[in-house]
Amino acid sequence: MRLTPDAKGVFPIAPTPFHPDGRIDDASIDRMTDFYGEIGAAGLTVLGMMGEAPKLDGAEAIAVASRVIRRTRLPVIIGVSAPGFAAMGSLARAVMEAGAAGVMIAPPPSLRTDDQIVGYYAQAAEVIGPDVPFVIQDYPLTLSVVMTPGVIRRIVADNANCVMLKHEDWPGLEKISALRAFQRDGSMRPISILCGNGGLFLDFECERGADGANTGYAFPEMLVDVVRLSAAGERAQAHDIFDAHLPLLRYEQQPGVGLAVRKYVLMRRGILASDAQRKPAGGLSATARAEVDFLLERLGRHDPRARV
Amino acid sequence: MRLTPDAKGVFPIAPTPFHPDGRIDDASIDRMTDFYGEIGAAGLTVLGMMGEAPKLDGAEAIAVASRVIRRTRLPVIIGVSAPGFAAMGSLARAVMEAGAAGVMIAPPPSLRTDDQIVGYYAQAAEVIGPDVPFVIQDYPLTLSVVMTPGVIRRIVADNANCVMLKHEDWPGLEKISALRAFQRDGSMRPISILCGNGGLFLDFECERGADGANTGYAFPEMLVDVVRLSAAGERAQAHDIFDAHLPLLRYEQQPGVGLAVRKYVLMRRGILASDAQRKPAGGLSATARAEVDFLLERLGRHDPRARV
Amino acid sequence: MRLTPDAKGVFPIAPTPFHPDGRIDDASIDRMTDFYGEIGAAGLTVLGMMGEAPKLDGAEAIAVASRVIRRTRLPVIIGVSAPGFAAMGSLARAVMEAGAAGVMIAPPPSLRTDDQIVGYYAQAAEVIGPDVPFVIQDYPLTLSVVMTPGVIRRIVADNANCVMLKHEDWPGLEKISALRAFQRDGSMRPISILCGNGGLFLDFECERGADGANTGYAFPEMLVDVVRLSAAGERAQAHDIFDAHLPLLRYEQQPGVGLAVRKYVLMRRGILASDAQRKPAGGLSATARAEVDFLLERLGRHDPRARV
Amino acid sequence: MRLTPDAKGVFPIAPTPFHPDGRIDDASIDRMTDFYGEIGAAGLTVLGMMGEAPKLDGAEAIAVASRVIRRTRLPVIIGVSAPGFAAMGSLARAVMEAGAAGVMIAPPPSLRTDDQIVGYYAQAAEVIGPDVPFVIQDYPLTLSVVMTPGVIRRIVADNANCVMLKHEDWPGLEKISALRAFQRDGSMRPISILCGNGGLFLDFECERGADGANTGYAFPEMLVDVVRLSAAGERAQAHDIFDAHLPLLRYEQQPGVGLAVRKYVLMRRGILASDAQRKPAGGLSATARAEVDFLLERLGRHDPRARV
Repeated sequence: MRLTPDAKGVFPIAPTPFHPDGRIDDASIDRMTDFYGEIGAAGLTVLGMMGEAPKLDGAEAIAVASRVIRRTRLPVIIGVSAPGFAAMGSLARAVMEAGAAGVMIAPPPSLRTDDQIVGYYAQAAEVIGPDVPFVIQDYPLTLSVVMTPGVIRRIVADNANCVMLKHEDWPGLEKISALRAFQRDGSMRPISILCGNGGLFLDFECERGADGANTGYAFPEMLVDVVRLSAAGERAQAHDIFDAHLPLLRYEQQPGVGLAVRKYVLMRRGILASDAQRKPAGGLSATARAEVDFLLERLGRHDPRARV
Repeated sequence: MRLTPDAKGVFPIAPTPFHPDGRIDDASIDRMTDFYGEIGAAGLTVLGMMGEAPKLDGAEAIAVASRVIRRTRLPVIIGVSAPGFAAMGSLARAVMEAGAAGVMIAPPPSLRTDDQIVGYYAQAAEVIGPDVPFVIQDYPLTLSVVMTPGVIRRIVADNANCVMLKHEDWPGLEKISALRAFQRDGSMRPISILCGNGGLFLDFECERGADGANTGYAFPEMLVDVVRLSAAGERAQAHDIFDAHLPLLRYEQQPGVGLAVRKYVLMRRGILASDAQRKPAGGLSATARAEVDFLLERLGRHDPRARV
Repeated sequence: MRLTPDAKGVFPIAPTPFHPDGRIDDASIDRMTDFYGEIGAAGLTVLGMMGEAPKLDGAEAIAVASRVIRRTRLPVIIGVSAPGFAAMGSLARAVMEAGAAGVMIAPPPSLRTDDQIVGYYAQAAEVIGPDVPFVIQDYPLTLSVVMTPGVIRRIVADNANCVMLKHEDWPGLEKISALRAFQRDGSMRPISILCGNGGLFLDFECERGADGANTGYAFPEMLVDVVRLSAAGERAQAHDIFDAHLPLLRYEQQPGVGLAVRKYVLMRRGILASDAQRKPAGGLSATARAEVDFLLERLGRHDPRARV
Repeated sequence: MRLTPDAKGVFPIAPTPFHPDGRIDDASIDRMTDFYGEIGAAGLTVLGMMGEAPKLDGAEAIAVASRVIRRTRLPVIIGVSAPGFAAMGSLARAVMEAGAAGVMIAPPPSLRTDDQIVGYYAQAAEVIGPDVPFVIQDYPLTLSVVMTPGVIRRIVADNANCVMLKHEDWPGLEKISALRAFQRDGSMRPISILCGNGGLFLDFECERGADGANTGYAFPEMLVDVVRLSAAGERAQAHDIFDAHLPLLRYEQQPGVGLAVRKYVLMRRGILASDAQRKPAGGLSATARAEVDFLLERLGRHDPRARV
């Protein structure tokens, strides 16, 4: 099953579960994969930035990706961003053979001009091969690469295997509107737009035309709800559930600390056995854990699923 | 009245009001200044980043600062960040003569090492003069200068006129805890810590030991409430009012777009006559305005002051 | 006399002379201005990056520019780069009234996309006014803004008052060739291309089609020679004189330290009374001065003008 | 043979030879390795930035490193910089088993504060293991990480296996003097300092106390000469040979283009069979090749070894 431009719904960015001693926790991988399937995810993304991918060696990366792919019937996207095309190509080949639905590619931070960005994706598309669907990761906050809507349109035009945008520009609402306008005026073929950036604007992103979410918030049920309600035109309800989660979601969206929060909540929910990250990792202070507990307790009053 | 290290409460970052044709709107300056006094602000900051300072020429900057200073009995901090010390020094002298309480200084983006940052503030402190209180602006997201707690401690130790930190690191909660721990262990004299970063973490920042807020959210009444309730130990109430505003506050905190949102809401509240920014300025699309209207309408159900 | 697209020759970037106590040294300004005229400069640039412009307040900047303009019959370009358009506009108006030939504008470091760069120059051109000739400063090493040849062509097309490129990309030889090819194929009107970057590639830049140099090497006579010999087809002689100066020129081209080297040599040559820079300034260590003396002594064997 | 802090001389940064079709060229690896031995190199560095390391997959990297190690009796340093510690650790283990003398580690561009840099090297040192000697690569121009002399001293103090600094700060002469002063005052144990940055300041770097060069200029014989003559106190001769090569060395030191120049000259010298780089690669235009040919022809008049 290959990823297509009509993908919709929530593709959680899966964390990589570790034991406290740093070994990969296979049982938690399985439990987490099952969990995402049960709550209505439309797919999964593995080895994204929040998946601690650079802390895995090549063999481990393939092993984690393969385990998730074997475990689920959902389409699985694998992050293959790398400092060089050799590593990107060999990882892409390995995971596609293992059954991945497609790959996600972030631009290296050194890119500046429009032509450099377009050229980079042309080279990457050649490296992975024309039959491998790929996702553009557009994340200027962390990558410092700024893609205009026009640049994204050029990448889509140049590469038939570009099927999805992971949209996490900030601010980014007008970008979604601009890309959908390109589709309406016929200047760009339709692609799937799933939103990241921790989900901080998912409520309005859906209304602007996004197809769903591609982020790893520890209550992906809420993301599923917002995407579904928004698609159904239930605007007030979509915002109600989103707003109930916003205090925690905002807390989880802190750079660096965010993954620790996410894993801690997933551990408290019983999905991960441990919230361990591989070194180097910033953990949560006792005060921060108490703050998360406080937010969970408040959230539980609005959303029974959050009573952990 | 000079700014002191025991400053507490909310110092709103005041926008600079313009007429649609780009002229400075004096009547709105007066109305806005009065408004901040009425809602319980403890002071004001003028010519901050969200004050469109670089769009004012030297004479205009002094005129705006002076008008605010004359209008209010609150202490007024003036942003004097500049690419060179000549401009910083002459603006600082002019506004202190006009009655400012102190000045705020952001580091230039080129600084990298601890010593460079410490050295820059030593030079700046010499340029403004030892009797002029100053505020460190610690805003890595925009300035790309990262100050450890230890560097802030060195700046405080080196410069007796350093009285306040505008804290807007992200994530930044542990930094507040670290600085307050320095004070407790006697390794740093006390300074005022007011929080910026759009107020996105004000709820927990107060609990971590911050003295207040230094940001320009369009409902500063909420900031005043949160600081007051938190200081009074009314934790649940502080979070309740914060959470009610969080959807709008989050929307306002988008880089670039944020000031347009803020001015639009202040205009809808009758405080500014126009939401005009001086060129170059990114305005709000019709869709974005409708989104803000929608958020205001929802907010009004929780906070009667937000019924505009 | 307004700057035109057919400007050729050497426009030295003039340093700003100071007394050791930080006051501006008018006598040295006059002597330096006369010197540049005597050695065959085609024009002058004042208040460039190496002119310590940010250390001057607004009145001083106008005073320095005006003094140079009054003193010489050569066309004088004034650097008006500023963090905001208000300061840029008021400085541009003042110096054009004082008789400047045009202004130079560097892009702010925050610009990333092609459209942002093109948009910035459109706004700047509007701010200075359509009758004021301007120079694009293309200096990615320091400014981190990367302009493709295509972007420069768009700026030239959009703004009739764009007459010159200060070319200091690195590597940059192919960019000169690309721009001249644009002119030959009729897709870009001719503009003057003068080269900066400390002159480190002036030998080949002239051969690629540059019209001259726009840099402040302490022996501008050499720059004049290379431009003249290269235009005359005397390739070997151009390289001979260039190569003789390269060890010192390379030493002068160190970021930060470079200006101190330049002022020291100009002082040793009797052109500046002092090599003082305004604070903050990195001076030369005794070892560094001895290294420069050593290089001067070696250079003097090849070029009698360098016997100082 | 492990790398020690008393290493001296020239360790060329070896390019990775490819066939025009992108395959690794083993015969050229052997010829190049022999060449470096014959001209008096004291060691070799493989898989540095100019070694196209990111274009090799894991197995290829180990194969190239191992081939060089087996071929020579010189100590071989392997670049193991990686976006994550997993890849760094596995590559370091593999090459040390294959007989490498040590590894070189560059800091990731995201590091800002002194503590972050020191912390990174502590983690890296733990990952590679306490018995593996390592080299700090200090290259702010490309990496945007700025290390003060004090930070380098902290890294040396914290990690007994830190034995060498690859110095390529720019400007950097005072940094060498500062580090040697630390050694003299007893605050830092001695380490080897070899200089990179294309060799552009090798003449004075040796005089400031550097132990040699660690760069890949296509005539490493000159680097060997300068280091030897400088150590012997033959200052004028050292500068004479350096200056003769400076026009070409400067041309080779252009970012991006530089490697193409270097490989082209090594091909013309008969050391590499081809100047091919793996994609993505910027090649040399016909004009650029002619410019290099011209520089070679001029160089040949001063240095007979350059007659190619």
